[in-house]
Amino acid sequence: MPVTTEVRVRYAETDQMGVVYYANYLVWFEIGRVEVLRTLGLTYGQLEKEHDCILPVVEANCRYRSPARYDDRILIEAWPAVLRSFVIKFAYRIWRKPSDSHPDSVPTLLAEGETVHVICDSQMKKKTLPPHYADALRTIMAIEKSVSSGKAGGFLIGDPSMGPG
Amino acid sequence: MPVTTEVRVRYAETDQMGVVYYANYLVWFEIGRVEVLRTLGLTYGQLEKEHDCILPVVEANCRYRSPARYDDRILIEAWPAVLRSFVIKFAYRIWRKPSDSHPDSVPTLLAEGETVHVICDSQMKKKTLPPHYADALRTIMAIEKSVSSGKAGGFLIGDPSMGPG
Amino acid sequence: MPVTTEVRVRYAETDQMGVVYYANYLVWFEIGRVEVLRTLGLTYGQLEKEHDCILPVVEANCRYRSPARYDDRILIEAWPAVLRSFVIKFAYRIWRKPSDSHPDSVPTLLAEGETVHVICDSQMKKKTLPPHYADALRTIMAIEKSVSSGKAGGFLIGDPSMGPG
Amino acid sequence: MPVTTEVRVRYAETDQMGVVYYANYLVWFEIGRVEVLRTLGLTYGQLEKEHDCILPVVEANCRYRSPARYDDRILIEAWPAVLRSFVIKFAYRIWRKPSDSHPDSVPTLLAEGETVHVICDSQMKKKTLPPHYADALRTIMAIEKSVSSGKAGGFLIGDPSMGPG
Repeated sequence: MPVTTEVRVRYAETDQMGVVYYANYLVWFEIGRVEVLRTLGLTYGQLEKEHDCILPVVEANCRYRSPARYDDRILIEAWPAVLRSFVIKFAYRIWRKPSDSHPDSVPTLLAEGETVHVICDSQMKKKTLPPHYADALRTIMAIEKSVSSGKAGGFLIGDPSMGPG
Repeated sequence: MPVTTEVRVRYAETDQMGVVYYANYLVWFEIGRVEVLRTLGLTYGQLEKEHDCILPVVEANCRYRSPARYDDRILIEAWPAVLRSFVIKFAYRIWRKPSDSHPDSVPTLLAEGETVHVICDSQMKKKTLPPHYADALRTIMAIEKSVSSGKAGGFLIGDPSMGPG
Repeated sequence: MPVTTEVRVRYAETDQMGVVYYANYLVWFEIGRVEVLRTLGLTYGQLEKEHDCILPVVEANCRYRSPARYDDRILIEAWPAVLRSFVIKFAYRIWRKPSDSHPDSVPTLLAEGETVHVICDSQMKKKTLPPHYADALRTIMAIEKSVSSGKAGGFLIGDPSMGPG
Repeated sequence: MPVTTEVRVRYAETDQMGVVYYANYLVWFEIGRVEVLRTLGLTYGQLEKEHDCILPVVEANCRYRSPARYDDRILIEAWPAVLRSFVIKFAYRIWRKPSDSHPDSVPTLLAEGETVHVICDSQMKKKTLPPHYADALRTIMAIEKSVSSGKAGGFLIGDPSMGPG
């Protein structure tokens, strides 16, 4: 099940086209994947400091569907999509929340993407995730799989149980 | 033929992992594609202002090969890879230039990627590129194709004629 | 009375020193001053779009007291400090909220600063704020003044009524 | 004598006002002060790695005179203004270089500012600069002082010897 985080578009994130500059979606992806860990009772900071385990990105992809604008309320959905020994892949959907300036009845999909990470120590030597991190992520992935098999997922189908917190 | 631009890694671009934060490669991509236009005697600024033509990104992909670090001299290679009526795709390679702190004999490949753009006016209505922009890009693409068919391209094969200016 | 906004430090905001890069405090200042308007029922977006009124920065100052680190919960306090015909000055205090990794009993002051803005239209011609914006800001300034005359203000003195929401 | 570095405004650095976002001037300041060291044959990277010496910012100020826009060629002038045992202060002037889109005869002053740094080790304990760094900075400061006493300095007076490289 995706973990949803809300942020508001900062003026600093816009460009002269009047929309959010495209590189900033990767910053939002990062916020999303950190919150996935946090909802599992884990933190990326501890992973780095206590387990000498970092997750450098080896691939990032983003498809932009609709532009985000200044002051929009953004929902970042993130979930672990693949977990192998030394590799973890997160997937993301970025939505705009309905608001006074965007009086849609449901969130609008702004972007989708994935990031692929190798799991390694601070010397860049591959290692596996601490077991309780891996277990927690596998649990969330199993739930996601069983939920996804039953329906399309996401806000598009208007399932209120999937709505932003 | 790729257009090569050199930048130096800024402290602001590093993160606490001691390497360049992954979203910044998309900023370097943007620098690269703007320089493609400039070497053709065209500017992105004029495209926006004089031709009411913008190139919003609809897709961005990056594969990270090796981390860039503070003060590294970075070579951004960019070239137009596809040009259709309303779509343009740029491709990129990011290299680290040999230096005192990186005494390699040839540049090191740090990342590769692509961005896909729709061509539209400021109201986000699709339009075609001004003809002299399209012609200039097609010329550079034809040269690239004939060069590429003869060899692998890029710095990896150590062809001095491909070296950064 | 200061308006308080909470943000969490993003990985993107750290640098290789392991702390938040110094320019990002100015981004936090911007978030703070926008929230000042929002708590008054006003938005910076409307000011720009409906009143053709922008607030370009003519001066920014920041004194850094203690470094912010990744994942810290940051409190941004902002308030209007001066309002003249064509000039508005906001003041800021940045705090770190106590947390598991920072088990302080009270917030820690990380930075203080000010920004000075000219009030002008999109052609950069000076103008005054719309009256209901100016009135609302003057009201908040009057409250601030009467509160400040009674005590030092801020979290330092441990006044629970001043604590972050 | 100020050290001058040239950068070009990136699209990422603009905001929806169509000008460079104000926090980015602090990034340019950082580029300028690093180049001051480099022209002295010193690098900030070595200072950190070989001398365990970092220069965290304790104060930053910027006065904005005229906006920088996309693709402008920017000149960053930086020089050491004060050097005491544990404190160093850099001063900066940001200029726009004349170009086709800005056919001025001389550079236009865009911003001025200063940053104050404490000199300390990675444990944030105060220390002095390595002697050859301090000596080199003092030499450059002495030249600056003798030059400044003779004239106003900077591009404003149209002294060609002060012109950008």
